[in-house]
Amino acid sequence: MQAINTFNQSFEQYMQQHPFKAEPLELYEPIDYILQLGGKRMRPLMLLMSYALFNDDYEKALPAAYAIEIFHNFSLVHDDIMDQAPLRRGKPTVHEKWNVNTGILSGDVMLVYAYEYLLKLENLTRLPEIIKIFNRFAIEVCEGQQMDMNFERCTHVTIEEYLKMIELKTSVLLAGAMKIGGIIADADGKDLHHLYEIGRNIGLAFQIQDDYLDTFGDPAKFGKKVGGDIAQNKKTYLIIKALEIADTDNKAKLQMLISNNTMQEAEKIQTVTQLLHDLGIPELANNKKLDYQEIAYAHLEAIDVAPKRKVALKAIADYLLNRDI
Amino acid sequence: MQAINTFNQSFEQYMQQHPFKAEPLELYEPIDYILQLGGKRMRPLMLLMSYALFNDDYEKALPAAYAIEIFHNFSLVHDDIMDQAPLRRGKPTVHEKWNVNTGILSGDVMLVYAYEYLLKLENLTRLPEIIKIFNRFAIEVCEGQQMDMNFERCTHVTIEEYLKMIELKTSVLLAGAMKIGGIIADADGKDLHHLYEIGRNIGLAFQIQDDYLDTFGDPAKFGKKVGGDIAQNKKTYLIIKALEIADTDNKAKLQMLISNNTMQEAEKIQTVTQLLHDLGIPELANNKKLDYQEIAYAHLEAIDVAPKRKVALKAIADYLLNRDI
Repeated sequence: MQAINTFNQSFEQYMQQHPFKAEPLELYEPIDYILQLGGKRMRPLMLLMSYALFNDDYEKALPAAYAIEIFHNFSLVHDDIMDQAPLRRGKPTVHEKWNVNTGILSGDVMLVYAYEYLLKLENLTRLPEIIKIFNRFAIEVCEGQQMDMNFERCTHVTIEEYLKMIELKTSVLLAGAMKIGGIIADADGKDLHHLYEIGRNIGLAFQIQDDYLDTFGDPAKFGKKVGGDIAQNKKTYLIIKALEIADTDNKAKLQMLISNNTMQEAEKIQTVTQLLHDLGIPELANNKKLDYQEIAYAHLEAIDVAPKRKVALKAIADYLLNRDI
Repeated sequence: MQAINTFNQSFEQYMQQHPFKAEPLELYEPIDYILQLGGKRMRPLMLLMSYALFNDDYEKALPAAYAIEIFHNFSLVHDDIMDQAPLRRGKPTVHEKWNVNTGILSGDVMLVYAYEYLLKLENLTRLPEIIKIFNRFAIEVCEGQQMDMNFERCTHVTIEEYLKMIELKTSVLLAGAMKIGGIIADADGKDLHHLYEIGRNIGLAFQIQDDYLDTFGDPAKFGKKVGGDIAQNKKTYLIIKALEIADTDNKAKLQMLISNNTMQEAEKIQTVTQLLHDLGIPELANNKKLDYQEIAYAHLEAIDVAPKRKVALKAIADYLLNRDI
């Protein structure tokens, strides 16, 4: 964890030094609010660590790390409006604390500020490449959110469609952040490819782990209520995989359960969880997660720098992907 | 008008060649819809004409012109949600035709595509400068929208505050578009300053003319219903100026009228219009418009290129600023 803490402290300090205190207050206060709600800062930290694979002075990449964090929080503010979510990290969402218009407009200006922070990099020689990558994941994150909203109205979602959706909504941002870190360090095309694939595969593994923990996690460690996805009829990896492999009877039973809104919640969670267990879903999900994790680690292995330079990235990947599964 | 038509045809052709036909359709269809609703395309055309002051091959600036038009339409989509506007150019707004979530998300991805089109410029040497200008007006447009929303809840707005708001919400985008056109043509700092000031002052003159026409325009030529601003109690240049110069009695009368929601609409429009007439507001507004117009023309004059190169910009400025006032 020591390896992670150094980056984390630098990043938090940079954020504190660059607040959004400006007029009109109605526009900027919500930005400081959402950015101060916390979170793991996993995207900016992994950008900094990607830079630090090649050079010591990772402080040079701080403006880009902040750009990524601002972008991520912009997407949270707008997604929370679309999903009508009342809480984010246990606190009221921006549109709840203020109103929907504030959420829209403060989100918009955050997206612009993300680009503005990219301009604060010391060396702008490779700016077109950086913006190209930034645009790509920004577009893909929107496409992923659209797919996610479409899935709510779909009766049938395939595993491929689900994996594509989480790749767009979650993984490409981490992948792009790591690649940008590499570009700022002037890494070559081969290493940039490895960085992208590390981020993409860690993102996929993390999301499947997230689905797993929501149903099978240890309530004492999970932080959120276990079974929330089932209670909300969410089409997670677990449910989609179960529908794919179940026989006709179990499939019908599961279909009935996930479209049932009258059953008592605790009973529904228990029944679905048991059915998923019986179908061997925990192991299948864990194996799928491990597949992605292994690919990520192989790409990290393939980057041609001294092993000690990889310690921080390895530590954060272990931390993210070994949460009680 | 011939001078304008050439640019217009090139721009419309470029737009047709670069549609947003892509998956997921739910995300991209609304973008083609809003972009095809039309409009004067004044911002992209003035960007192209700014480039053409210095070089003939204005086609090189088309990607940036499109970026500006995409940005402008992004701001319309989000503003229409915030203002709960049902119609745009006589057609349903995006959030009306689809829904609010679609308006938010399609708007977001449009903002990203604006940056993406800036990357399609042939020469990216001055990209950091271009993005700096783009970010500045993008931030200011959001700040202007926030000020505009704040004004609705304010009892007192000064002329200075109003002019600042319309500068941010309208003028800086035109100013920035023209400056970007100049940068692509590799113009020097002095000429870039002139271009910015031309756009800024034309924008201010245009907005005051817009306020004027909404109340004093010829119904046959105006296109929209004359008196709409008065009916909606909007704090326009005319009303704010009237409140500033009126004596105590007239001020009280006007305050009463613009906060009255029970009076019969036609009577209210007629009474307020007459009061504005009596206070000499039409002449004051026209003079203010002419002040900005003159400054804009002086900056155009000051650009050191052959007069024939300025024909198109002069023609569009005349067209925009001599609408029946």
